[in-house]
Amino acid sequence: MRYLDLDDMEYLAIGAAVLGTGGGGDPYLGKLMAKQAIKEKGPVKLIEVEEVADDDWVIPTAMMGAPTAMLEKLPNGSEPESCFKTVQGFLDKPAVATISLEAGGLNSTIPLYTAARLQLPLVDADGMGRAFPEIPMVSFSINGVPASPMVCADEKGNKVLLNTVDNTWVETLSRVVTVAMGLSSMIGLYMMNGETLKRSAIRGTISLCIEIGKAIIEAHKRNVSAMDAILKITDGYQLFEGKLVDVQRELSTGFVRGKAKFEGLESNKGQMFEMDFQNENLIGFIDGEPITMVPDLITVLDYESGSPITTESLRYGQRVFIIGMPCAPIWRTEKGLKQVGPRYFKYDLDYVPIEKLAAG
Amino acid sequence: MRYLDLDDMEYLAIGAAVLGTGGGGDPYLGKLMAKQAIKEKGPVKLIEVEEVADDDWVIPTAMMGAPTAMLEKLPNGSEPESCFKTVQGFLDKPAVATISLEAGGLNSTIPLYTAARLQLPLVDADGMGRAFPEIPMVSFSINGVPASPMVCADEKGNKVLLNTVDNTWVETLSRVVTVAMGLSSMIGLYMMNGETLKRSAIRGTISLCIEIGKAIIEAHKRNVSAMDAILKITDGYQLFEGKLVDVQRELSTGFVRGKAKFEGLESNKGQMFEMDFQNENLIGFIDGEPITMVPDLITVLDYESGSPITTESLRYGQRVFIIGMPCAPIWRTEKGLKQVGPRYFKYDLDYVPIEKLAAG
Repeated sequence: MRYLDLDDMEYLAIGAAVLGTGGGGDPYLGKLMAKQAIKEKGPVKLIEVEEVADDDWVIPTAMMGAPTAMLEKLPNGSEPESCFKTVQGFLDKPAVATISLEAGGLNSTIPLYTAARLQLPLVDADGMGRAFPEIPMVSFSINGVPASPMVCADEKGNKVLLNTVDNTWVETLSRVVTVAMGLSSMIGLYMMNGETLKRSAIRGTISLCIEIGKAIIEAHKRNVSAMDAILKITDGYQLFEGKLVDVQRELSTGFVRGKAKFEGLESNKGQMFEMDFQNENLIGFIDGEPITMVPDLITVLDYESGSPITTESLRYGQRVFIIGMPCAPIWRTEKGLKQVGPRYFKYDLDYVPIEKLAAG
Repeated sequence: MRYLDLDDMEYLAIGAAVLGTGGGGDPYLGKLMAKQAIKEKGPVKLIEVEEVADDDWVIPTAMMGAPTAMLEKLPNGSEPESCFKTVQGFLDKPAVATISLEAGGLNSTIPLYTAARLQLPLVDADGMGRAFPEIPMVSFSINGVPASPMVCADEKGNKVLLNTVDNTWVETLSRVVTVAMGLSSMIGLYMMNGETLKRSAIRGTISLCIEIGKAIIEAHKRNVSAMDAILKITDGYQLFEGKLVDVQRELSTGFVRGKAKFEGLESNKGQMFEMDFQNENLIGFIDGEPITMVPDLITVLDYESGSPITTESLRYGQRVFIIGMPCAPIWRTEKGLKQVGPRYFKYDLDYVPIEKLAAG
């Protein structure tokens, strides 16, 4: 147990953007919201999964939709706690904590914002250990937790509550609602008790994000690149160094889908790195050969500083390092790969772990 | 006060399809459902608006979406009462009756089905006196009743509850949900107390539908056309007699939109009648000149029998009479025309009442 303060918000936002693999929302907005809430309400208690009693309840809160949209349509600030409380209405006693669904600049800080506003603890865990684009892509779902009752709330005051027959229907219905709300919404879902949490949470994600973020900010102070520190903390691999020469994005069916191409520099001179994304970076190819594939993580870092670059911030001419990191073990199981493996995303490829692909 | 029995269902379904102006759902399915419920639960009490106490509550139930879809995706039968009960959960005491939102083959019989299943009375009124395609197009909305809390339920068991800032947002969000549910859903919404009901309901719509339906079925028995009887009951006008020579329909943004063209016969020989619809028939032109426009009613009747033909049943070669009927007075007010007048539907036309257009 520890308390998270204003400095931790700096670390968390930028560190989570590394695990956000291009998605998970912009770190700047999330950081502002979380800092504001901590200033008003005080530091947030970070608790271990094991500290939640088996019959106590936690309710995750998050942002859903295209991160690009959230930047142009700011939250009014009451949505996350409103979502939390609406879901809580289905319980016979108050929930004891909130938790993050995924790691990401916004989706690691929103639950912290919720926790601060409600003066509840945040659980040091998440449901992905990274960011993924769809609602059922969390370890809770793989472990049989229903996503519904789920609430979507927008900044205008509209609220939609979903009760569905399965988590695929939650995705379908909440996606069209989120699109109609203006491409982003705040959500509360996957309420679960401590027993289920212990079976299904990916532990330590918040601490890990803070550790990564701290390494990045300390490297900045010493005026060196944070990449080596990031690779060490995440057991990651440097995949490519190059310059962004093309990026295409389109907003379709509620997602930012696109491709980016990088021309090799230095050790990769003469090579080409191509990357596809759906909110998150999904797969990377060097000269047409896959070098890392979902569910393993791909993150683009600024060449000089090693700061993570989200997909909506990719710009022509950027010099970058691209790194890959192994995913949480649950995603490499048969159930995990069925939900988030390359074939789910329509690639005619069997999953090969990054340890084999990038090191081989 | 009276009780509605199996015979009344025959009358109601077909009579409501006349006021449904091409929309409001297929009379066959609604009749089957209502008859089954009456067989199981007994006749349904039809009460006057004035019989509802000022502080008692009524909850409308209906079908939403493209009527065409409902024919291919049958309800499981529990949706309407499930919608009713979910909305009722927002009240501090049980609702005393259900009521219909619009007149239509399905939307006049669904509330009766709900009433039978819940063994509650049906109020002899509705919110349109005809059918319209969008949620805010009811007299309740014009009188300031919020449509939300609104529930959409599908036959699979999915349920979505909307709480919105206004009735336009109810339309936007429930429409995308209904489309995602497979283009149709059952809904509960516009809960209101007796005081509000008395201020805003269009009275006697159920009795009127039954009166029209009875006239149609009696004309059939005597082997004559029901048209004259319909015109007499509704103060209607014969607009055109002809043959359907072209019909175009498309499902777009959750509606069946289209056009139909009729070549004149007999008294209209040499003339052409063109009609646009969005679930309901909206406007009719003879040789390019408007002859009846929304909110007044346009209904296509079978040439021989005078039975109403819904938009989804329009077929090449059909010989028909087209009739027009004056709308309920509320739609001719400034507020009414703003919500359902020709300009709302993107026609660059000022509303002219049918009494002037068709008789002039």
